[in-house]
Amino acid sequence: MTNSTHTEHNLPAAVPGGPLAGLVVIDMATMMAGPHTAMMLADFGATVIKVESPAGDTSRASPNKVNGTSVYWRLLGRNKFAVTINLKHPKGRDLMLRLIEKADVLIENMRPGKLEALGLAPATLHERNRGLVILRVTGWGQTGPYANRPTFGTQAEAMSGFTYANGQPGGPPTLPPQTIADGAAGYLGAFSCMAALWRRAQDPLHRGQVIDLSLFEALFCMFGPSITAYDQLGIVPERRGSRAPVSAPRNIYQCRDGKWVAISCAADQIAKRFFALIGRPDLNEDARFSSGDARARHVEELDVIIAAWMSKHDAADVVTLLTDGGATAAPVYTIPDILADPQFISRDLIAQAPSEDVGPIRMQNAFPKFSESAGGVSWSGRPLGADNHLWFVEMLGLDPEQLAALHAEGAI
Amino acid sequence: MTNSTHTEHNLPAAVPGGPLAGLVVIDMATMMAGPHTAMMLADFGATVIKVESPAGDTSRASPNKVNGTSVYWRLLGRNKFAVTINLKHPKGRDLMLRLIEKADVLIENMRPGKLEALGLAPATLHERNRGLVILRVTGWGQTGPYANRPTFGTQAEAMSGFTYANGQPGGPPTLPPQTIADGAAGYLGAFSCMAALWRRAQDPLHRGQVIDLSLFEALFCMFGPSITAYDQLGIVPERRGSRAPVSAPRNIYQCRDGKWVAISCAADQIAKRFFALIGRPDLNEDARFSSGDARARHVEELDVIIAAWMSKHDAADVVTLLTDGGATAAPVYTIPDILADPQFISRDLIAQAPSEDVGPIRMQNAFPKFSESAGGVSWSGRPLGADNHLWFVEMLGLDPEQLAALHAEGAI
Repeated sequence: MTNSTHTEHNLPAAVPGGPLAGLVVIDMATMMAGPHTAMMLADFGATVIKVESPAGDTSRASPNKVNGTSVYWRLLGRNKFAVTINLKHPKGRDLMLRLIEKADVLIENMRPGKLEALGLAPATLHERNRGLVILRVTGWGQTGPYANRPTFGTQAEAMSGFTYANGQPGGPPTLPPQTIADGAAGYLGAFSCMAALWRRAQDPLHRGQVIDLSLFEALFCMFGPSITAYDQLGIVPERRGSRAPVSAPRNIYQCRDGKWVAISCAADQIAKRFFALIGRPDLNEDARFSSGDARARHVEELDVIIAAWMSKHDAADVVTLLTDGGATAAPVYTIPDILADPQFISRDLIAQAPSEDVGPIRMQNAFPKFSESAGGVSWSGRPLGADNHLWFVEMLGLDPEQLAALHAEGAI
Repeated sequence: MTNSTHTEHNLPAAVPGGPLAGLVVIDMATMMAGPHTAMMLADFGATVIKVESPAGDTSRASPNKVNGTSVYWRLLGRNKFAVTINLKHPKGRDLMLRLIEKADVLIENMRPGKLEALGLAPATLHERNRGLVILRVTGWGQTGPYANRPTFGTQAEAMSGFTYANGQPGGPPTLPPQTIADGAAGYLGAFSCMAALWRRAQDPLHRGQVIDLSLFEALFCMFGPSITAYDQLGIVPERRGSRAPVSAPRNIYQCRDGKWVAISCAADQIAKRFFALIGRPDLNEDARFSSGDARARHVEELDVIIAAWMSKHDAADVVTLLTDGGATAAPVYTIPDILADPQFISRDLIAQAPSEDVGPIRMQNAFPKFSESAGGVSWSGRPLGADNHLWFVEMLGLDPEQLAALHAEGAI
């Protein structure tokens, strides 16, 4: 907690053995990058208080509901404490400020200016708690001509260059089937909070700061050197299906059983092994295929040869043959395949997260794996206001009558 | 530096004003997740020493070269100091251990067991420096039946569920056009190093630990609640082009000028605004389109109406009309569009990174933005061994004759 040295943590936390024990986070953000950042911090031991309006976070009402509550909340609310505060009510705002006095990090995703309109401008928050790290998540950032544009991940994905280059040659540009902008921003937000806390730990005045995180920038900066390749070499990425512009073979092929296998040969020696394993060592002597550049130039002929071979074998046999032989191959998996895969079972990819209404719920586990202080999943997203008593009475010291009055007044 | 309190940093760093000033990182990883993590740390003020074999990092020789050096190295090597060590040479190994005594973080991406085979097992490293955080990056993790499979991001992407669901209905599964597995692991690696350092700061014994980061897990866990939706509701994501399974309209439409625009209407009021803005307020009264569920059921009819409207307008006009009216729309951009966009210019999306051979090189800037201790880009990837003298003579205290001898012996 603020101004402590974090040498003791008399704090409730979902995953007390995690590396972030002692860190206190308030998550007032909604779908989905901000809550994803807060989930990362909670997964690894932080005490995370999810502050929702009395109407509940939008993610509870998102599509794909289980017993009335969306799978989004089941996941994104995991390992968090659930409290309600009406920030538009003066007593709600006061309660929020008292909570903020206890916190190291605040995560919000309102449109620029809306936090200020609630009387919770960063300067106000820093008056109460100079150590607070404030992560502000928006589509385009706090500044610039698009700052106030309503945005979802779709818009960031469309403008990032990814969508233009995603799809088959001759086909339309294609949005990604997963929310990669929100996911990237979730990860980058978690890193940037920790970076600001590193800075604070070295500051004799123990000062926090404001982090301005945009979905677009988080996604765009995750990609490799596209800008540099364009700047220096004039390369504009075009749609090429599953082929790669600079190495071959790299594609997806359909096998005899209808399943698909992905191949890549980023290194020459892997291509050599691959040709030998499919019974075509002669290709290694063929000038069309004996170097990466040559293979990329003759990719159409090469893919015809490989596709013909694949069509005569089942996918599982292809993957075994190639991976055992030191080439790179992978099946194209869907969710049930992932759940059944021995590697992922061995790594505990899937957690069983308890819920209060529908029993354990399966979801991805906490990764990566730490040798000495593991992350984990102790519960899925909790019922609305489930932890009001814990935080407002036991932690902040209100008496139960005050709590009841706040509730009656619509402040929580 | 280890065992210091980080209250002073008499350390060279590319971005000394960044939040991670005082952090010392050794990057001995190759393409591309591990170096991406190290780049994040360097961008925000850490002192990052890139240790390459005397033959040079593989990313230098990757495709898309500028003056003989790949754009990958130009980007991934930025803000790092470049030194060479032959880890197979006993004197090289000794030099590495001396460097490790000064470090907070080591990043490596060898196949499981290879670091141990070099005599650099984590236990050995921790004997020299108990505070060291060791980030180990692999395709599948350090354990399990696939631990030793050669892997690139392509394989992780194929098995993550993303590729299966990516593409047009009736078309093949499609690999992503960007290296999203490496990017996700780069971000997650940076977060997890900082989490381990938070833990270390609270440990009276100042102990580091080992982090086992897999490309697959980093990518898979970035996505939303796919596992939960399957577990609870039996939903298996299928290819549906740019449509979303649970909201409509959400798609990409071609405009009169041939350019594409992405639309999403995750909230009802946004759909209402959208229909009014395209001159069809009547659709808001139409039972087929008046709720999210209804729109999703009648998406084919809806997309015909929208596509017809889009084909009569130019993309820029569509985006202006819709975003000014409070709906969500975005152009599908490619790299030159991104470089010319006023929002991205306003946010300084692109940095000009100095190089020693070809002048400034454009690349993505350091994000997110910190209010008090900004990240930045001071140089692009440096020449091989450019900083051997700085680190081995000035920082470790070898005399120049020793350096010359190490070079002559093939140890650096």
